[in-house]
Amino acid sequence: MNSTKTQLKIDFPFHSPEELEAYLPYLLTRLAHRWATDQDDALQRDGLHGSKMRILSCLSAFGELTINELSILSVTEQSSASRTVESLVQSGLAERNISQKDQRVRTVKLTPSGKNTLVEIAPRIIDLNRNLLKDVEHEELKTCVLVLGRMLKNIKRNAI
Amino acid sequence: MNSTKTQLKIDFPFHSPEELEAYLPYLLTRLAHRWATDQDDALQRDGLHGSKMRILSCLSAFGELTINELSILSVTEQSSASRTVESLVQSGLAERNISQKDQRVRTVKLTPSGKNTLVEIAPRIIDLNRNLLKDVEHEELKTCVLVLGRMLKNIKRNAI
Repeated sequence: MNSTKTQLKIDFPFHSPEELEAYLPYLLTRLAHRWATDQDDALQRDGLHGSKMRILSCLSAFGELTINELSILSVTEQSSASRTVESLVQSGLAERNISQKDQRVRTVKLTPSGKNTLVEIAPRIIDLNRNLLKDVEHEELKTCVLVLGRMLKNIKRNAI
Repeated sequence: MNSTKTQLKIDFPFHSPEELEAYLPYLLTRLAHRWATDQDDALQRDGLHGSKMRILSCLSAFGELTINELSILSVTEQSSASRTVESLVQSGLAERNISQKDQRVRTVKLTPSGKNTLVEIAPRIIDLNRNLLKDVEHEELKTCVLVLGRMLKNIKRNAI
């Protein structure tokens, strides 16, 4: 065991609210749920709730993805990811293509209209983030992103 | 504006995988989902998936809670929290009582059997956590818990 790495002692079962509130999975679960609800509320008038928004964001970051990749990255069950992509294609925000790397593979990417939509909603997303990160210092946040990224690497099952 | 607090610049829409991977809500969403799936897998043989486990953990930490409190703390929609409590009562892991503070209020708490069950599954929960926290240093983790706790305070809508 590497002596420079120590694990936070997990007191389980919990015996106080403080122990639960210092428990990473509890914090992750509550934050993810609260964030999703707030984002859905902020984007309700655009009809971009839940998986639609997550899929658009992943396409914006990665450019072109298969349904399988989209499903993993956007945390959306595969058949639901397919249906959401279908709906995004019908509303003109995304388009399907044959992969340039492999003719057998179908990929999805944003249309110019999809890109514009993300630019239009950006101020609301940035506002939500500003509120989430209120009173958090830059260095603390950098550490937090680093640690969460390492955790994701520790527990994810796929290469992406 | 307090000059000692700075916000991480959010580049939205994202233009690269790296921008998405440094985006807190993305990390929170993927980690929470991955954690929930792994915990469900680890506890499948005990039938303690999802909301059952979250509710037992909250009762262990807080002692006694109303359905409304349990619903918020365990991130479970209220009617689903009620059904899960009903199922926990039927299997002898939890019991309903009249609140000592207010005779009109019904509360839920663990039975000795519920407490024993948590002790029995503790090694598996601790293992999952050890894997999640692999290669994370103690100080980094402390910062991470602190920052996530502050974020939860920033965005939660309830006192608990």
